[in-house]
Amino acid sequence: MIRVGVNGYGTIGKRVADAVRAQPDMEVCGVAKRSPNYVAVGATEAGYPVYAADDDRAHEFAAAGIDLAGSVDKLVAESDVVVDATPSGVGAENRPLYEHHDTPALFQGGEDATVAEVSFNARVNYDEAEDADYVRVVSCNTTGLSRFLAPLYENYGIEKARVTLVRRGGDPDQTGRGPINDAVPDPISIPSHHGPDVQTIFPKLDIDTIGLKVPTTMMHLHTVNVTLENEPDDVTEIRDRLRSEDRILTIPDYAGIDGAGTLKDFALDAGRPRGDIWENCVWEESITLRGRDLYCMQAIHQESDVVPENVDAIRALSGHLTGPESRSLTNETLGIGF
Amino acid sequence: MIRVGVNGYGTIGKRVADAVRAQPDMEVCGVAKRSPNYVAVGATEAGYPVYAADDDRAHEFAAAGIDLAGSVDKLVAESDVVVDATPSGVGAENRPLYEHHDTPALFQGGEDATVAEVSFNARVNYDEAEDADYVRVVSCNTTGLSRFLAPLYENYGIEKARVTLVRRGGDPDQTGRGPINDAVPDPISIPSHHGPDVQTIFPKLDIDTIGLKVPTTMMHLHTVNVTLENEPDDVTEIRDRLRSEDRILTIPDYAGIDGAGTLKDFALDAGRPRGDIWENCVWEESITLRGRDLYCMQAIHQESDVVPENVDAIRALSGHLTGPESRSLTNETLGIGF
Amino acid sequence: MIRVGVNGYGTIGKRVADAVRAQPDMEVCGVAKRSPNYVAVGATEAGYPVYAADDDRAHEFAAAGIDLAGSVDKLVAESDVVVDATPSGVGAENRPLYEHHDTPALFQGGEDATVAEVSFNARVNYDEAEDADYVRVVSCNTTGLSRFLAPLYENYGIEKARVTLVRRGGDPDQTGRGPINDAVPDPISIPSHHGPDVQTIFPKLDIDTIGLKVPTTMMHLHTVNVTLENEPDDVTEIRDRLRSEDRILTIPDYAGIDGAGTLKDFALDAGRPRGDIWENCVWEESITLRGRDLYCMQAIHQESDVVPENVDAIRALSGHLTGPESRSLTNETLGIGF
Amino acid sequence: MIRVGVNGYGTIGKRVADAVRAQPDMEVCGVAKRSPNYVAVGATEAGYPVYAADDDRAHEFAAAGIDLAGSVDKLVAESDVVVDATPSGVGAENRPLYEHHDTPALFQGGEDATVAEVSFNARVNYDEAEDADYVRVVSCNTTGLSRFLAPLYENYGIEKARVTLVRRGGDPDQTGRGPINDAVPDPISIPSHHGPDVQTIFPKLDIDTIGLKVPTTMMHLHTVNVTLENEPDDVTEIRDRLRSEDRILTIPDYAGIDGAGTLKDFALDAGRPRGDIWENCVWEESITLRGRDLYCMQAIHQESDVVPENVDAIRALSGHLTGPESRSLTNETLGIGF
Ligand SMILES: NC(=O)c1ccc[n+]([C@@H]2O[C@H](COP(=O)([O-])OP(=O)(O)OC[C@H]3O[C@@H](n4cnc5c(N)ncnc54)[C@H](O)[C@@H]3O)[C@@H](O)[C@H]2O)c1
Ligand SMILES: NC(=O)c1ccc[n+]([C@@H]2O[C@H](COP(=O)([O-])OP(=O)(O)OC[C@H]3O[C@@H](n4cnc5c(N)ncnc54)[C@H](O)[C@@H]3O)[C@@H](O)[C@H]2O)c1
Ligand SMILES: NC(=O)c1ccc[n+]([C@@H]2O[C@H](COP(=O)([O-])OP(=O)(O)OC[C@H]3O[C@@H](n4cnc5c(N)ncnc54)[C@H](O)[C@@H]3O)[C@@H](O)[C@H]2O)c1
Ligand SMILES: NC(=O)c1ccc[n+]([C@@H]2O[C@H](COP(=O)([O-])OP(=O)(O)OC[C@H]3O[C@@H](n4cnc5c(N)ncnc54)[C@H](O)[C@@H]3O)[C@@H](O)[C@H]2O)c1
Repeated sequence: MIRVGVNGYGTIGKRVADAVRAQPDMEVCGVAKRSPNYVAVGATEAGYPVYAADDDRAHEFAAAGIDLAGSVDKLVAESDVVVDATPSGVGAENRPLYEHHDTPALFQGGEDATVAEVSFNARVNYDEAEDADYVRVVSCNTTGLSRFLAPLYENYGIEKARVTLVRRGGDPDQTGRGPINDAVPDPISIPSHHGPDVQTIFPKLDIDTIGLKVPTTMMHLHTVNVTLENEPDDVTEIRDRLRSEDRILTIPDYAGIDGAGTLKDFALDAGRPRGDIWENCVWEESITLRGRDLYCMQAIHQESDVVPENVDAIRALSGHLTGPESRSLTNETLGIGF
Repeated sequence: MIRVGVNGYGTIGKRVADAVRAQPDMEVCGVAKRSPNYVAVGATEAGYPVYAADDDRAHEFAAAGIDLAGSVDKLVAESDVVVDATPSGVGAENRPLYEHHDTPALFQGGEDATVAEVSFNARVNYDEAEDADYVRVVSCNTTGLSRFLAPLYENYGIEKARVTLVRRGGDPDQTGRGPINDAVPDPISIPSHHGPDVQTIFPKLDIDTIGLKVPTTMMHLHTVNVTLENEPDDVTEIRDRLRSEDRILTIPDYAGIDGAGTLKDFALDAGRPRGDIWENCVWEESITLRGRDLYCMQAIHQESDVVPENVDAIRALSGHLTGPESRSLTNETLGIGF
Repeated sequence: MIRVGVNGYGTIGKRVADAVRAQPDMEVCGVAKRSPNYVAVGATEAGYPVYAADDDRAHEFAAAGIDLAGSVDKLVAESDVVVDATPSGVGAENRPLYEHHDTPALFQGGEDATVAEVSFNARVNYDEAEDADYVRVVSCNTTGLSRFLAPLYENYGIEKARVTLVRRGGDPDQTGRGPINDAVPDPISIPSHHGPDVQTIFPKLDIDTIGLKVPTTMMHLHTVNVTLENEPDDVTEIRDRLRSEDRILTIPDYAGIDGAGTLKDFALDAGRPRGDIWENCVWEESITLRGRDLYCMQAIHQESDVVPENVDAIRALSGHLTGPESRSLTNETLGIGF
Repeated sequence: MIRVGVNGYGTIGKRVADAVRAQPDMEVCGVAKRSPNYVAVGATEAGYPVYAADDDRAHEFAAAGIDLAGSVDKLVAESDVVVDATPSGVGAENRPLYEHHDTPALFQGGEDATVAEVSFNARVNYDEAEDADYVRVVSCNTTGLSRFLAPLYENYGIEKARVTLVRRGGDPDQTGRGPINDAVPDPISIPSHHGPDVQTIFPKLDIDTIGLKVPTTMMHLHTVNVTLENEPDDVTEIRDRLRSEDRILTIPDYAGIDGAGTLKDFALDAGRPRGDIWENCVWEESITLRGRDLYCMQAIHQESDVVPENVDAIRALSGHLTGPESRSLTNETLGIGF
């Protein structure tokens, strides 16, 4: 049993904790949190030992009826692996703590690539993480792009990829974030940071990305163009390849799924925990081939697509299963694939 | 076992079907649907026999891989009770079909009150439905208001209620609905239809309502003022009464729940199916007493608060349990109350 | 000529500057700004001398091609009156500067009432500002409520007012502000600060306000209930009174104006500068009388309704015109009243 | 003087009417409208003779205090040119009326290209309209793309253009349109109709477009990639070419303009009627060259960019000025170029 500690129990952390618990070879030895809000109460109700990320606020937990198991230092000491899911930039500040305890750790995509030796995507470079102590699971957008590009890269070669990322402005619980009525270039400069981030996974890929954010909360939307090196026989071949990817869901035309609202409704109907969609969602009808130019649109559930990647990264760090073995175990235990 | 047919398997219908299935004294004998989209596929996967609401489109179901169990006429014939959850106004058109088969039926709040003999709220007038064949479960907003007003009405008397309903523009799956960037008086005239609708439940209540719609999809928000006839001792008394209501959730201050986004996140964390919140959500901090004037804000999950009411209404029609017995069985089987 | 300096040239400041320039008895002697963005460039193009609010950033103005007339200290020294339109809280920090130069000043509604001797609304308490050196023009919401309540207060007496303020989340240029998909109680506690703020204008008024914010940028929407002390003859009487108020626009039914989008479109069609609507916008159809209970809905253009109030407050401070004289001159020069 | 009749006086029609009136060689002989709402009242106040598009509703105009000048038939008879700005699809129904009176007419981009002999963009194919009787001014998006592509096409040749159109869900006055909280592929199939529409202007251009709509009302946003045939010296060369285009506004970095909200605020500050931005708005910082691959982002004001194109198309039809002469006269009279 790999004992996993989760430091930072928010949008990503709570999902990773639940996914870890569903694994036969892992257990959650605790979660660390700063503030005793409904999410912290939820951790207690889920049965996770709760640790205080910030000792000064320990008394607030008591006031909310939460028994603390200790401070984050203790959690790190007791864990075989820590998943750091604190806000962007805090992970880097935490690294010395993990080093101090000699505890291997995962970081999330909000950190700079330099926070860890390896940037990770289970489909592409599981092996690279096997020798590492610190691994960064790339962001929701980079994960989504890596999964989509991988089968194309392997089978046809990619001359160039061009992607527009229409990003959700904030998560459903982030009422402070905008924009309210604007589509905002973010960043204005091109390429956005997403292109170089994808290159941490595919170092030789020629990719240009453009980012903007819009007033939605449910999913990112990518419009993707890939100029392939070798022309496929026809678009059916591409559709079939994408369909056969384990972490890509292709949306058939008859389904009447027109955006993130219906996608999430579909996932909730299917009984997915929190309505999570761990898979890339590619509209079949959008997959189009014009010579060597492939186009499509995909939706990415920012809150959850990195969750199975975190599970696989824990296994890669601990080294007892191969990539395909881990991926298939993760898929099965979580119920990935509709 | 009460055999329940669901005619109209959309936002409300699919939830009612699942809730019915969870009852020990009921079973779903089938659901009728017009179009073979992802929701219809979901019905099949949930194991519900699917009937075609529209015979002309039966072949489309075959194309989507859905085996039809027959047409809606057959479903009505085989049901002890039909829950009509078709779009507003279609229920009234369906009533002759139910009469033809002598099948008692429930209608939803989108229908005019005249569609049925009784407008129904389980907390207030369960008994009235016991002798009826046709019952209308009042709308999400009216249900929410009735539950809130009931303990006040009983304990203090209500001189007058004044409510502003800040309504969500559309459900998460309704991409065609607006507004995008506007708060729209809807209707402009005062009182809105909600006041008279609440009076179908509390005939003698003096209530004025104002309606508007805003660019949100998750929940309605009500700002409520009630001038009580008798002054409570203090606000604590009111809080305690509201807390003790089975279908009201009072949100404590420390929870950090600031709106519908966090409420839904909380419900999803708690494992609620579809993230549904069957209860009224009242912010404790907002409950305020100024003399005989009580104020508060509550959020209402439009997609699900009527679901337990439908279950109770089925029982009221069939007459084998009392109101308190039914409500408590419904609450227990669904997991109402956090 | 009253020489007016505007410190803080943003949403409010730029509008006040233009309104001041339109007065026969005033001139803009300069505007102070922190950052040399498009608004600063606009000041230069409008012909206003630009002063640096922050000396450290003076070189940035040069880089943007803006010639500075000096620093804010000089502007204050040269002004007969300063209009402080800096962000909330900054005004209070600036007050010592104005005192140092013995320059009377106006503050805006984002400041606490304690920043000045008088909180001001031209319709209600112009006279009180005549002896003051420091005056606070109340916020957009408070201005809108004061104008609406004034004729009712004078003619019928007000037993109690209850208002829900459905506030826009941010101004059109504030892309960082949310919420995106939520109606957020703000504050959760009742009454919101708006009630006490209205009482700075009507000290004896019994008023309870509830505030929330929604994902819109154009206007606030108020749902208003006023229990009058004396019952009017009929609703026509009320409509006529509101119609005869100079800073209230009553929207007739046939106009087809359903919200802030059409209101702003209407104002832009009418050639209003910046599409500004200085008047309260009351839907005639919403004005409803139930005994002594009056209801209605009004929209308030947050960016501009305080502008004529600032102009009048400048005159009140300088003391050379009476309230009615000033209001009528302001109305005429700006073109208030459609 | 060219006597211009405007049939359909809504978002586009009212702007075209005002632009026509500003021309020394044109006059508005009347506008036709269906419903007597605020826009119709505005036409009267602007001094335009108002004609009833629908005789059956003539009495409604009287009720709103609008004197009708006659029915649309008369307007067409009296016009030298009709600008049809009725809703999508209605223009085609109106064509027989114009033919009956032998009156040349312009149609808008909501019509199919087959409605007229020529699809028109003043920058690209003014001459083609000179011999035509019926001309279609292409849509806001196609106009914006044509202007951007023209200088690239002429100077470098275009191997391929790839564009994502992030479209506003509705205009500010269209409260019925969504989506509220979704980015919706629209259409799901690729290419969207925009690509072929651009090819009505550039018949030989290789262009693929992807369309989606988002919950914003102010402007469209385009992310553009153009693979040039010949590589420019450097990006400065491109910037300078774009800057020198009369109907392209390049946004400098220091301006602090981050989206449509600030763009419209800027236009309103500059005194633009209705805050209209007739020019494409290209972020300078976004203009990027990677070999022969050019990228950038531009915002397009859907309500107004076609207005100067309509004015030029009227002149092209009437044939008394060349394209450059007309464009320059239109620019000067409207105040195009900041
Ligand atoms: N939300 C997303 O869409 C998303 C998607 C992929 C990756 N990520 C990345 O995941 C990471 C976490 O993001 P999130 O959205 O889950 O954030 P979050 O704000 O939802 O959760 C962060 C949690 O960390 C806690 N925390 C804050 N400071 C802390 C500290 N100093 N020590 C310990 N805990 C602390 C907070 O209480 C909170 O529980 C970031 O790197 C982010 O970029 C987020
Ligand atoms: N969605 C809400 O927020 C909400 C809340 C409370 C009450 N209601 C009421 O519930 C009822 C249903 O609303 P909904 O939101 O579930 O609608 P919906 O559109 O989500 O679902 C309606 C279903 O009925 C089917 N249908 C359409 N025409 C039909 C016909 N002629 N015969 C049989 N089925 C047909 C549709 O295929 C769809 O599956 C309405 O009266 C509505 O006012 C809705
Ligand atoms: N925007 C509204 O809806 C609105 C309505 C009514 C009242 N108000 C009040 O008006 C005041 C100004 O608000 P706003 O919306 O115009 O703000 P804003 O942010 O649009 O403008 C503030 C301006 O002040 C400048 N500034 C910032 N710090 C400064 C400093 N230290 N010294 C001098 N200038 C400085 C900024 O550069 C900016 O130009 C606030 O009190 C606000 O509460 C705003
Ligand atoms: N709004 C935009 O963003 C935009 C941009 C570019 C092009 N267009 C195109 O311009 C055209 C007009 O669009 P709009 O946005 O101005 O529409 P709109 O709805 O704002 O205005 C249409 C006007 O036509 C009137 N009308 C309706 N039916 C009529 C009829 N049968 N005869 C005469 N008048 C009638 C309406 O009363 C209204 O005044 C469409 O082809 C549209 O695709 C619109």
